[in-house]
Amino acid sequence: MAQQHITSRADDYAQWYQDVIAGGQLAEAAGVVKGCMVIRPHGYAIWEKMQADLDRRFKETGHENAAFPLLIPMSFITKEAEHVEGFAPELAVVTQAGGKELEEPYAIRPTSETIIGHFFSKWIDSHRDLPLLINQWANVMRWELRTRLFLRTSEFLWQEGHTAHASHAEAQEEVARMLDVYRDFAHEVMAMPVIRGVKTANERFAGAVETRCIEAYMQDGKALQAGTSHDLGQNFGKAFDVTFQNAEGQREHVWQTSWGVSTRLVGALIMTHSDDEGLVLPPKLAPIHVVIVPIYRKDEEKAEVLEAAHRIASELRDDGLAVKVDDRDAVKPGAKYYEWERKGVPVRIELGPRDIADNAVMIKRRLAEIDERGKPIKEKLSMDGLGVALGKVLDELQSGLFTAAQQRLADNTVHVDSWDDFVDVFKDGGSKFVYAHWDGTQETELAIKNETKATIRCLPYAEDGPAAEAGTCIKTGKPSAQRVLFAKNY
Amino acid sequence: MAQQHITSRADDYAQWYQDVIAGGQLAEAAGVVKGCMVIRPHGYAIWEKMQADLDRRFKETGHENAAFPLLIPMSFITKEAEHVEGFAPELAVVTQAGGKELEEPYAIRPTSETIIGHFFSKWIDSHRDLPLLINQWANVMRWELRTRLFLRTSEFLWQEGHTAHASHAEAQEEVARMLDVYRDFAHEVMAMPVIRGVKTANERFAGAVETRCIEAYMQDGKALQAGTSHDLGQNFGKAFDVTFQNAEGQREHVWQTSWGVSTRLVGALIMTHSDDEGLVLPPKLAPIHVVIVPIYRKDEEKAEVLEAAHRIASELRDDGLAVKVDDRDAVKPGAKYYEWERKGVPVRIELGPRDIADNAVMIKRRLAEIDERGKPIKEKLSMDGLGVALGKVLDELQSGLFTAAQQRLADNTVHVDSWDDFVDVFKDGGSKFVYAHWDGTQETELAIKNETKATIRCLPYAEDGPAAEAGTCIKTGKPSAQRVLFAKNY
Repeated sequence: MAQQHITSRADDYAQWYQDVIAGGQLAEAAGVVKGCMVIRPHGYAIWEKMQADLDRRFKETGHENAAFPLLIPMSFITKEAEHVEGFAPELAVVTQAGGKELEEPYAIRPTSETIIGHFFSKWIDSHRDLPLLINQWANVMRWELRTRLFLRTSEFLWQEGHTAHASHAEAQEEVARMLDVYRDFAHEVMAMPVIRGVKTANERFAGAVETRCIEAYMQDGKALQAGTSHDLGQNFGKAFDVTFQNAEGQREHVWQTSWGVSTRLVGALIMTHSDDEGLVLPPKLAPIHVVIVPIYRKDEEKAEVLEAAHRIASELRDDGLAVKVDDRDAVKPGAKYYEWERKGVPVRIELGPRDIADNAVMIKRRLAEIDERGKPIKEKLSMDGLGVALGKVLDELQSGLFTAAQQRLADNTVHVDSWDDFVDVFKDGGSKFVYAHWDGTQETELAIKNETKATIRCLPYAEDGPAAEAGTCIKTGKPSAQRVLFAKNY
Repeated sequence: MAQQHITSRADDYAQWYQDVIAGGQLAEAAGVVKGCMVIRPHGYAIWEKMQADLDRRFKETGHENAAFPLLIPMSFITKEAEHVEGFAPELAVVTQAGGKELEEPYAIRPTSETIIGHFFSKWIDSHRDLPLLINQWANVMRWELRTRLFLRTSEFLWQEGHTAHASHAEAQEEVARMLDVYRDFAHEVMAMPVIRGVKTANERFAGAVETRCIEAYMQDGKALQAGTSHDLGQNFGKAFDVTFQNAEGQREHVWQTSWGVSTRLVGALIMTHSDDEGLVLPPKLAPIHVVIVPIYRKDEEKAEVLEAAHRIASELRDDGLAVKVDDRDAVKPGAKYYEWERKGVPVRIELGPRDIADNAVMIKRRLAEIDERGKPIKEKLSMDGLGVALGKVLDELQSGLFTAAQQRLADNTVHVDSWDDFVDVFKDGGSKFVYAHWDGTQETELAIKNETKATIRCLPYAEDGPAAEAGTCIKTGKPSAQRVLFAKNY
């Protein structure tokens, strides 16, 4: 494999992103299938770790997985008026099957509210059947013209939660609960701080009465919507006639929610932590925690070093670490270092005959610890208790990445009170997280977007955003009840 | 939910199979999407347990997961001559996307040899890139006219392994290795004995030079092909120009394999173990090992019993068991027993005030232990050390199911040496596993199929089938080198 140059962020951020993905062998454009990608093993292993952690959180909150059909009758898509308007332009349509033209074409699912609504109507009869709490891990298809690996592709992998409840209040609790699950995952596992909030009507999911989101800060100042949780009200319940008999014997339509995150989280992860040397992974999402590179000059050293490398790997695995021994003969140590740095492996061990004699190993962190204690990037650790010591190093890297990302978010979050200052933030391709007042109208929202490319990412939760404070709209001078979050976005 | 009657196997085997699936809430026909199914949470949880175990085995044998596009350009399907002949009639075709007619239509993948061959040609350059060992968990689509839940549906879930090697010998080793992985999984986890063997040319995968399979015995005497492992030779390597530079500097086409199992394994599981009361699950695939049903007559007993139920559940979970406390108020204990039996939960605990006073619980196995020791179906176990005792019960159920299935296979496997006897086995809808001599020609194979509906399931491995022995073909009297396995099949 040719060594992959990584463009610096300062030179060309978009190219840097592509280079990090290529250098880490995470994914590549399919080319022959328009707008689609291949997720290569290292990228897929990161997604698997995300899936495992999220799936545990979904199950702990009472959800069960199921699988619904990939194909949706076109007539289903059109049953909810706003839904069809939002999704119809992006559909991929199956018109032939088994050698024949179909009487009714099928859409490949762009999302599954409609088909799942249909089955909910068969499964739900009484209030005793509620709440119904389902999740699906699946591929979906939205035909996109401008695509970017992980961030926006015609096919992507995701999970979609779909729930039905006996009251609106209970559905709203679910919407908030699952947004918090996403926030906890982003903070604790991805080491990526996010702002929770409510979308404006303009940015709402097609068919929802309210959409909540988590928004993450990318290193170029833009926001990335990392997860959404929708209050569907009774919209789909009415479209698909999903009713239940309440405790008083009357039939009512159910209240539904849906919520999802996708493989775009891998893109978010890259743009939160990675640097000009390539991928940086928080240890909790690293498919390999520690790579051991054996160093030997003479053939007579080889057996001893390899034996020690595999013995150490085995001991570290017993301590719960994912360890790779890179014992390839045909690749030089320097090339191995380069490759594993680009793959974001958090810790490298360089192991030679002298280390074995010293009963110690030289470790190198993928990043210097970022907090104030300033640990060295390279240090010698005793082989005795090495697993525990490395566990501590990994914990420091995990929390150090989160601290650094929080600091970056804080450093690039500003309160803006004049239109000139607002325009200034977003000129020349710039972006920050800007808290500013807005008059609450879609007209103003779109005018601001047209002039600056900045959009309202959300009306932030009080705990996550600025203190509640009335003011006047930055654009129109009209009254505003709270500051909202503006940024350019992916 | 209405109680679901289960037809007996003796009365109507096909209806029994449908009833077990409905009664266990495993899946249902999609109806509105032709030939497709919804896998309901209990069915999906069984599939997840299968996935987790298989995935571990794939990774232990050096394979990595990846994700390739759902859509395949139609021109790719036609590149391998036998492949297109086999799959073209079953394709679902996307002709419109993003509101436009596509210039070249896409097929929804029926299997991914072609698209993966394309990417292998980009990734493989040198013998150092080999072997390349990839697996994909995915949905695939083969438009079927006659469908049966799990066994044959237009869309199904599966894994497809795809590997490339530098020599035919190495590829053949991989084919055999992965077939053994499937056999081990079937025996150790599904408690389902299988016969390994080689398919005849007539039953070979479209595009393979050899197909190996594991064949399982169903309770009605038919065989179910439970997994396949294909030696693709250089067929796809040549069609997609997948070449590597060998150690001598010459370019060669790679040797490829592919292998897969699917959600039809859930159907195989049902037809191996279930009975006239519904689903029976080997404990290693049971999403719930133990269900606790609290029994109380008076409201003043309720708090005590529920507290004890949840405390016991928590202790059993610490011992690694999956435990459900069925604390629904609106459902009577008898209805709960009925429901959990139909869902195949291996052990039920009935817990009342007297049990708590006695520091013991009454357990009921889903099945009496089947081996010669004849344990009682109901017994009282002390709460002290309950987790260990239940672990032993589950181990006994797991091995008891395997022993019973092995016995059933042995009891229904026959050697047949005359055409009259052969016809007799398969008349009136009958089927067994029949080892008989065959002259090796496709003409005879098809003649036997036409007259009896029995097909050659495989040329069995020497270790799994009858002793090597020459003879004469049951149909033509011509010479035969070995007995082959005949049965009707799913």
